[in-house]
Amino acid sequence: MTEFEAFALELAAEAARVTVPLFRNEGAAENKAGEGGFDPVTEADRGAEAAIRRLIAARYPDHGVIGEEYGEDRPDAEHVWVLDPVDGTRAFIAGLPLWTTLIALRQAGQPTVGIIAQPYLDEIFLGGPSGARLVSRGESRPIRVRPCARLTDAVIATTDADIFTAPELGAWTQVKAAARLARYGCDAYAYAMVALGRIDMVAETGLKVWDWSALVPVVEAAGGQVTDWTGGPPSGDGRILAVGDARVCEDALVAFRRGVR
Amino acid sequence: MTEFEAFALELAAEAARVTVPLFRNEGAAENKAGEGGFDPVTEADRGAEAAIRRLIAARYPDHGVIGEEYGEDRPDAEHVWVLDPVDGTRAFIAGLPLWTTLIALRQAGQPTVGIIAQPYLDEIFLGGPSGARLVSRGESRPIRVRPCARLTDAVIATTDADIFTAPELGAWTQVKAAARLARYGCDAYAYAMVALGRIDMVAETGLKVWDWSALVPVVEAAGGQVTDWTGGPPSGDGRILAVGDARVCEDALVAFRRGVR
Repeated sequence: MTEFEAFALELAAEAARVTVPLFRNEGAAENKAGEGGFDPVTEADRGAEAAIRRLIAARYPDHGVIGEEYGEDRPDAEHVWVLDPVDGTRAFIAGLPLWTTLIALRQAGQPTVGIIAQPYLDEIFLGGPSGARLVSRGESRPIRVRPCARLTDAVIATTDADIFTAPELGAWTQVKAAARLARYGCDAYAYAMVALGRIDMVAETGLKVWDWSALVPVVEAAGGQVTDWTGGPPSGDGRILAVGDARVCEDALVAFRRGVR
Repeated sequence: MTEFEAFALELAAEAARVTVPLFRNEGAAENKAGEGGFDPVTEADRGAEAAIRRLIAARYPDHGVIGEEYGEDRPDAEHVWVLDPVDGTRAFIAGLPLWTTLIALRQAGQPTVGIIAQPYLDEIFLGGPSGARLVSRGESRPIRVRPCARLTDAVIATTDADIFTAPELGAWTQVKAAARLARYGCDAYAYAMVALGRIDMVAETGLKVWDWSALVPVVEAAGGQVTDWTGGPPSGDGRILAVGDARVCEDALVAFRRGVR
């Protein structure tokens, strides 16, 4: 494991110390309700990002940071950490243990280390130069995408069809009709399932840089690929397509390219 | 805890011994693929139901059983166990730990004991004459729905809007537009979150008796209510509406009653 991979695991553990006690914690919400608008998911998001930023500043003071909650700090540095401490805030609010903590290290503009962590489940999906691993319940094991020759065999996922524009929804509907099975509501956890070889394709739109940066090393190190909806590298347009087997991507891109128009 | 509540927990533990080793088990699928169509979720469903039926037959030979996999056995008995060992087969297939094991005891036609269990998370939501409890990670604690005065404050859920008929979808869309937040893809786990006070309303259609029987004691013992889409008791039409706070139900029924027409 590289130094940065090990450090990313430390960051995930630090985030978990903040987020897990706030998850499903009605008491925390009620005790502070009188102080005006206490919101456990916002507390988790902000508290975890602040904690991660402190560790980075202490260990690597020359590194940059981009986070959903506290903005950009030296975003043009050679090394930039890209953070979303609680991805899937609606799952967090609804008590569903599929929200995740996303941590990426970008080097020279490319995400090279990524973590998708679900701390309530004690699951950390790590991708980087040393490969892809699931670190869970005291064990660490390599993970890998599974082969899937055709879209008609594929298990696919997106967070919520309601976020699509009309052309995007047309593309998704066409791909969904062809696929074996579709799931909703997984947020970034779906990409971890691609890396684990359980889901074959995830398509989403409207993602920010902190939503997708961590996914790229996890899926790629497990043998998959992450592109935009035209098949090019993920970009600022927020449309992401992740597949375990590139053959599924070829089938789906015919539809997704139409959705971009 | 009553004798039947304790026995229901035994049944859930027995089911977990069958289902958990098959969850995310690529090896099991690959090793047996040559024997023709080995399907881990079907194996889990059948194996767990057979194991539960053996325990019931040994302990209460005069009780009836209704299960999704092996049909009806004395369905008119005074005591009838109603089983769905793997509810949420699509979640199971996709590697998502939100599938559940559903176990209900029906006495004189009414579900009186219910279990919603997620064994990979080591969570059992139990409802019955002794109240509602979450049995998890070696602890057992009472659970309760939360107050929610209006639909506009409510977190709501359904499994998949694609299962609705056109009038049903109209009703769901109207309710969703009014609600604070909607989640998809939870299957029966959403009802456990109602009992835990994290979700305020779940609406579904097309449910079979083994899909909804276990939900009723869990939600009701936690202080909520379960009805059909007209506000009457759950019936054979498969439309279920569960709320933590009855005030949310009043708001939503205006729309849902239209969806039944």
